[in-house]
Amino acid sequence: MTHSSPFTPAEKSFKARVFQIIFESDTRAGKTFDIVLITMILLSVTCVLLDSVPHLNQRFGTYFGWVEWGFTGLFTLEYLARIWCLAQPRRYIFSFYGVIDFISILPSWLSLLLPGAQTLMVIRIMRVLRLFRILRLMEFVGEGRLLMQALNRSRRKILLFLIAVLSIITVFGSLIYLIEPPEAGFTSIPRALYWAIVTLTTVGYGDIAPITPLGQFISAIMMILGYSILAVPTGVFSAEVIRTIRLDQESEEACPGCGREGHDKDAKYCKSCGTWLDEETEDPREKASDD
Amino acid sequence: MTHSSPFTPAEKSFKARVFQIIFESDTRAGKTFDIVLITMILLSVTCVLLDSVPHLNQRFGTYFGWVEWGFTGLFTLEYLARIWCLAQPRRYIFSFYGVIDFISILPSWLSLLLPGAQTLMVIRIMRVLRLFRILRLMEFVGEGRLLMQALNRSRRKILLFLIAVLSIITVFGSLIYLIEPPEAGFTSIPRALYWAIVTLTTVGYGDIAPITPLGQFISAIMMILGYSILAVPTGVFSAEVIRTIRLDQESEEACPGCGREGHDKDAKYCKSCGTWLDEETEDPREKASDD
Amino acid sequence: MTHSSPFTPAEKSFKARVFQIIFESDTRAGKTFDIVLITMILLSVTCVLLDSVPHLNQRFGTYFGWVEWGFTGLFTLEYLARIWCLAQPRRYIFSFYGVIDFISILPSWLSLLLPGAQTLMVIRIMRVLRLFRILRLMEFVGEGRLLMQALNRSRRKILLFLIAVLSIITVFGSLIYLIEPPEAGFTSIPRALYWAIVTLTTVGYGDIAPITPLGQFISAIMMILGYSILAVPTGVFSAEVIRTIRLDQESEEACPGCGREGHDKDAKYCKSCGTWLDEETEDPREKASDD
Amino acid sequence: MTHSSPFTPAEKSFKARVFQIIFESDTRAGKTFDIVLITMILLSVTCVLLDSVPHLNQRFGTYFGWVEWGFTGLFTLEYLARIWCLAQPRRYIFSFYGVIDFISILPSWLSLLLPGAQTLMVIRIMRVLRLFRILRLMEFVGEGRLLMQALNRSRRKILLFLIAVLSIITVFGSLIYLIEPPEAGFTSIPRALYWAIVTLTTVGYGDIAPITPLGQFISAIMMILGYSILAVPTGVFSAEVIRTIRLDQESEEACPGCGREGHDKDAKYCKSCGTWLDEETEDPREKASDD
Repeated sequence: MTHSSPFTPAEKSFKARVFQIIFESDTRAGKTFDIVLITMILLSVTCVLLDSVPHLNQRFGTYFGWVEWGFTGLFTLEYLARIWCLAQPRRYIFSFYGVIDFISILPSWLSLLLPGAQTLMVIRIMRVLRLFRILRLMEFVGEGRLLMQALNRSRRKILLFLIAVLSIITVFGSLIYLIEPPEAGFTSIPRALYWAIVTLTTVGYGDIAPITPLGQFISAIMMILGYSILAVPTGVFSAEVIRTIRLDQESEEACPGCGREGHDKDAKYCKSCGTWLDEETEDPREKASDD
Repeated sequence: MTHSSPFTPAEKSFKARVFQIIFESDTRAGKTFDIVLITMILLSVTCVLLDSVPHLNQRFGTYFGWVEWGFTGLFTLEYLARIWCLAQPRRYIFSFYGVIDFISILPSWLSLLLPGAQTLMVIRIMRVLRLFRILRLMEFVGEGRLLMQALNRSRRKILLFLIAVLSIITVFGSLIYLIEPPEAGFTSIPRALYWAIVTLTTVGYGDIAPITPLGQFISAIMMILGYSILAVPTGVFSAEVIRTIRLDQESEEACPGCGREGHDKDAKYCKSCGTWLDEETEDPREKASDD
Repeated sequence: MTHSSPFTPAEKSFKARVFQIIFESDTRAGKTFDIVLITMILLSVTCVLLDSVPHLNQRFGTYFGWVEWGFTGLFTLEYLARIWCLAQPRRYIFSFYGVIDFISILPSWLSLLLPGAQTLMVIRIMRVLRLFRILRLMEFVGEGRLLMQALNRSRRKILLFLIAVLSIITVFGSLIYLIEPPEAGFTSIPRALYWAIVTLTTVGYGDIAPITPLGQFISAIMMILGYSILAVPTGVFSAEVIRTIRLDQESEEACPGCGREGHDKDAKYCKSCGTWLDEETEDPREKASDD
Repeated sequence: MTHSSPFTPAEKSFKARVFQIIFESDTRAGKTFDIVLITMILLSVTCVLLDSVPHLNQRFGTYFGWVEWGFTGLFTLEYLARIWCLAQPRRYIFSFYGVIDFISILPSWLSLLLPGAQTLMVIRIMRVLRLFRILRLMEFVGEGRLLMQALNRSRRKILLFLIAVLSIITVFGSLIYLIEPPEAGFTSIPRALYWAIVTLTTVGYGDIAPITPLGQFISAIMMILGYSILAVPTGVFSAEVIRTIRLDQESEEACPGCGREGHDKDAKYCKSCGTWLDEETEDPREKASDD
């Protein structure tokens, strides 16, 4: 996020300052802005949540409405400031986070145009999507980046795992649909699939449960399967986190003297033969003995 | 899957092309075929699922029937093409995936011969077994192969774990059967075992639950046990994924001196005969003795 | 389990043969004996399980009785043979597995002495303890030994984890007991602790569940806690499995030439400098150049 | 915890002995004191738990009261002894564990001042907070320290994970609130969030469960998500345990040349100045240049 801001010296002064505060987070003002923003997002989402509780809505409904308009005003100002201070605003507007930023102010303005209680409720609740704005800030944190990298590396393996799990769920769900009577709640295969997912993921609501001995036997197999194969995504992700941490720490260069690899990134001498590792500069020890 | 197709040059042209498209996936046509096949499998299984929903079956039952026959026709053609283009079709027919391919077209043809609503339903639902055809394609993907290898390596350890888990379940299930009154749902040991599996795997339907203090105390022990020993398959599989990734990093080069394989990628000398492994550069030891 | 059998040559022949078959499993007869024994244990436990199902007991009760006496006879013979073929039978009789072996035949003989339906049922079900005899055989398998080692190494850490978990459960359970009304099922702290264990281990029967908003809020915290700290035993055990596998494979010796460690146990030459690793014998290469 | 006790020789004798017994655990008396203390804490908490069971309270209520006063007396004595034997008692009193120690005796004394059945019950139950005193002792155990270190290192990553999980829960909970009718139990967003947490953590009480097909479909997605992302904290913590164990294997010796610490245990040369680390043997490089 450290683009060099594309302004001529004359225009630069104020725009660049705004850009720095809003888009970057390595200055003090930038960090303060981030913290204020997160706080506002959390407060405005809390408002939406509390407003949905019937007895709170009756008593404080009007206040929640005013607070909401306050936040909408501030987020709208911030959105316009983001567009204004960029040289190529189009890119931002159609980027993933640009769209999220827009969606987080849209519902309030829409509610002025579209009447009708039901639509209004849908729109009001869309405001919780503002929470996704917080995810952007996670990318700034080193740990967040590491997690994202490890997730990215294990992405395809976990996708394959999910395909296998969904196949198992479909086959077992269909089987249980054949075995169990509709009275137990298995009235269609999609419903049996819902039950199969509830069972395999070990959630186990109990709203639908097998009642025949054979159905219970097959459920038992599914449970043990679901319990054991949880090891697969966990194992895959553990391996990738370990690999990501190691790659972050170790140099990929081998020692020119003995070929040993796995030196720390800050190592200057080989730990097993003492050779100077950086071939492009001279070893200070040799310099010393030359004198 | 890259067998050299066993035809004389004259016959080869067309058969070999069909073989390449159907059985291999490294050409463009082969990949397209795979994607079309997966899409068709998913669509036909979706048909079976939706057909089981009573109100959808009433309205669209006839359409689902026609669509199903269309897919059966295409899968039958594909099955015949697989047999026709192979030199030794017998091997394919009796292989695991050959049987799966056959089972995925069998139900529709059987439904012509066997009348009766109940049998028909069983047969219709057997079509979801088509999903297993997708699993074959997973073996082509590098990540799929890695997962299979790691599963294979941890197979015996996880089997031992399951034996231990089943022993614990049997002993605890029998114990709770003695303690809890039949009114709580523990009417026989097999039913108590079903409850024990529901509890140990942390599914917890709640359709059968202990009601005496002693029964609840023993359940609590089982829950903590089930919660903690989940670490066993996870730990085993994590270790095997890490090992598999590392083995992937082994060099595939054999030692020019003794033919030994399985050297680490960073190895400079053969670990069993001491020969310099990198044939393109000179062994520093020889250089030293030349001087 | 490979004790040298302590008999004089004259007595040896038969006793030693019986000893080898029963106690060891590296001969063909020993392996066959193990498999027959496991099969018999599983069959006899299955009998006990099926006998507890009311309608099976009514129809086949007498048969189950006869089969049970058959197994008891065979297990008793085996137990006597074990004692007879040992030089110091006392050690075996009072060892862990000796007691298990005795307990697995005791219930049937006791049922002759003690009358009364209820006592009889307790005794009959004690027969499932035979299953523990199977665990002994796990120690013979290499993978079983590795798992036991890793469990052993992580034992103390997982114990500490359980102490912390039980403290959390007690404090949260007491808190929820104060908050929730007795109508929700929280009639005493021990009952609230049962609920807390059901919740923290993610079993979630739903037989007792909080009904006040504050109780649900605290439950939600417990669930997220229980969900996240599952990582602790899993992480600890994964690390120990990885360490156990590595210790099994790698030599602990460093290369005398360059100090590099982490050589495979079968390595003869250092992989990074080519030095002969076994300092007690001579490098065959040097021998060759000496000639 | 091995502070040198700050007394003049004259005062030292008795105070120092008490200090050693109470605060340290490396002498025999210190260990005995720790074990007696843990036993007393566990017994007094057990009393509180049993006292809450209605029929036990009716029969043994008065005895529990006396036992409780006995423990309170002993804990009060111990608290005073801790203050008395320290040179700077203020630091201890306002430290985390000092406050815990105070809280564990406060309730009993408060119950003399504050009448009223309800308040009394709250106060009585506050006594279970004594359990936190046990956690202090975990820090003495090497394994406890290792776990704490690994938790500490993974703290920020797991926090980020929890933020992401809570965002997902809020968005999904709001969505299901829009879809499901209030009859299914989703009467407000906070209630829907409670359901979402119950579902994502795979607890699954079943007290609130979706009843519309669309709601069940979205729940199914949440379950699979919750089932899969459990891999994240587990993977992070596994990696940190492995790293912590490995760091434990780092040499504690500083380089004699530049003072740098944190060398691997197998390092022969300092990685930042190339000095030979093993002062008891000679550097092979020097040997070579001597010849």
